[in-house]
Amino acid sequence: MGSQPPGLSFALIEQARARIAPLVTVTPVLTSSTLDEACGARLFFKCENFQKGGAFKARGACNAVFSLPEAQVRHGVATHSSGNHAAALARAARLRGVPAYIVMPHSTPLAKRAAVERQGAHITLCEPTLAARERAAAACVARTGATLVHPYDDLAVMAGQGTVGVELLEQVPDLDVLLAPVSGGGLLSGIAVAARTLRPVARIVGVEPAGADDAARSLRAGRIVPCERPETIADGLRATIGVRPFAEFLRYVDDVVTVSDGAIVAAMRHIWEVMKIIVEPSGAAAYAAVAAGRLEVRGRRVGVVLSGGNLDLESLPWLTPVRE
Amino acid sequence: MGSQPPGLSFALIEQARARIAPLVTVTPVLTSSTLDEACGARLFFKCENFQKGGAFKARGACNAVFSLPEAQVRHGVATHSSGNHAAALARAARLRGVPAYIVMPHSTPLAKRAAVERQGAHITLCEPTLAARERAAAACVARTGATLVHPYDDLAVMAGQGTVGVELLEQVPDLDVLLAPVSGGGLLSGIAVAARTLRPVARIVGVEPAGADDAARSLRAGRIVPCERPETIADGLRATIGVRPFAEFLRYVDDVVTVSDGAIVAAMRHIWEVMKIIVEPSGAAAYAAVAAGRLEVRGRRVGVVLSGGNLDLESLPWLTPVRE
Repeated sequence: MGSQPPGLSFALIEQARARIAPLVTVTPVLTSSTLDEACGARLFFKCENFQKGGAFKARGACNAVFSLPEAQVRHGVATHSSGNHAAALARAARLRGVPAYIVMPHSTPLAKRAAVERQGAHITLCEPTLAARERAAAACVARTGATLVHPYDDLAVMAGQGTVGVELLEQVPDLDVLLAPVSGGGLLSGIAVAARTLRPVARIVGVEPAGADDAARSLRAGRIVPCERPETIADGLRATIGVRPFAEFLRYVDDVVTVSDGAIVAAMRHIWEVMKIIVEPSGAAAYAAVAAGRLEVRGRRVGVVLSGGNLDLESLPWLTPVRE
Repeated sequence: MGSQPPGLSFALIEQARARIAPLVTVTPVLTSSTLDEACGARLFFKCENFQKGGAFKARGACNAVFSLPEAQVRHGVATHSSGNHAAALARAARLRGVPAYIVMPHSTPLAKRAAVERQGAHITLCEPTLAARERAAAACVARTGATLVHPYDDLAVMAGQGTVGVELLEQVPDLDVLLAPVSGGGLLSGIAVAARTLRPVARIVGVEPAGADDAARSLRAGRIVPCERPETIADGLRATIGVRPFAEFLRYVDDVVTVSDGAIVAAMRHIWEVMKIIVEPSGAAAYAAVAAGRLEVRGRRVGVVLSGGNLDLESLPWLTPVRE
């Protein structure tokens, strides 16, 4: 396999949990007899949409920021992102009392920019390409001495996200399957490492949009195969799986299944209507795999991570047509 | 005061609780540090939007249907309503294995009609006037021998709704204020009677839309003063307060405050965005009173009933203009 990057351990997740306990919410697990009957399984929804900032990203960002040594962190932290990680990192920096530098494309919706600004972060706008973002972030780090906190290809971030798995398996110890959405892979790799210790018999399955199925293809190929042009309504699931998360996928993830954008929107709407909770498209992807029959769950006890609930309430996907 | 109708007692609420326990959900109490900071109080949201059928109405309907003697109930139950009570009564009848006859105006949205049909109820359509509804319901009762279950002017229904208060005061015993929306008054009268025993120092306050403020005016006048033409976006809050609920209001309710439709929509949206849960306009009214400063809550511990979460996801109020 060539040289492997250092792996994520259960001990790192346990340390993360103790470190971030005062800073994040122990999110509830909700159930729905209506949704259980519809799929013939017992579903346990881990509600990270109720997490601080409305997404699981608070966990990894807090763990990364609070595990940096004082002499280093006082120069601040930086990232390039327009999504939930940016706002979560800005919040973690504010809580630790250090500056946050966020590079975002100038095409970022005003609402997301405002969420980052509310946390007091310094924002640098750039062209909406990955190259421009990386260049701007590198310049920002060179100028300020800030530490770059990658949204997923970072062991401290992965350990933080893994606390979702520890909590869920404490709340519902006897799960047969754990399902979570996959973008860069930070969340599912953390959950997989947690489950490996706490519930090794559980099947660990990732869910990707069909239009951004790099992790599914990478797992089949045994090496990272990026998507040339990810295209999905799930704006949180467009990243390419990272090197460190992928190493854990190879060890511990049983499968990655894909769902259409139509299935994601239908699942999202079903969750809203039946459970009366708000999930964003990315947050509904794991349930979409169950609802669309993309994996066998009949008679099983299934943990389903609802990863976040941030979206623009002015433009709901069922008010505009979505490709199937 | 002339002849008083028999009153609601705490014992009736306790009996209701035992009777409906297998049929309804003990709904969670959620909190939000963001909303607490915004109003300077501690808010405890009683999430009846998570109740069976998406509204507190399941409680009263189940208590009414399951407290009827077998010889009577086997002829079925009936009501005229197009809203949450109709679906809740239809569900309660299905659970008891007896027919439900629901009279609804032919203008009822298809989604609400479908919800009642899914419970297997017999639907009679009529003209959209109160007179036509009452006439059709009377004809239905005469034909079938079914028992009419009024949506609020009924002690068994009021006792069922009162279980919201018992649960909330067990979950958060030391509340200073209890806030709930008022339409026919069944919910708040039940809560008031529960609090009278469990937490007599708590202030009991109802909230009405300014365009359907019959309870507020009735409480001031000391007699029921109907609204000629209720007009509010909160479709669940348009009824006139009932005789039996009003008797409890006179005894135990400290105040009824009003909120504008604009304040209701703003509160609803704020709850969706911050708490990531879905409440209907009626369900957001109690929080609207806090958010709009319609009562003094600074430093207090306030129970806020989110009464329901059923609405048409195609036509959200912030996508269309609302009168202030």
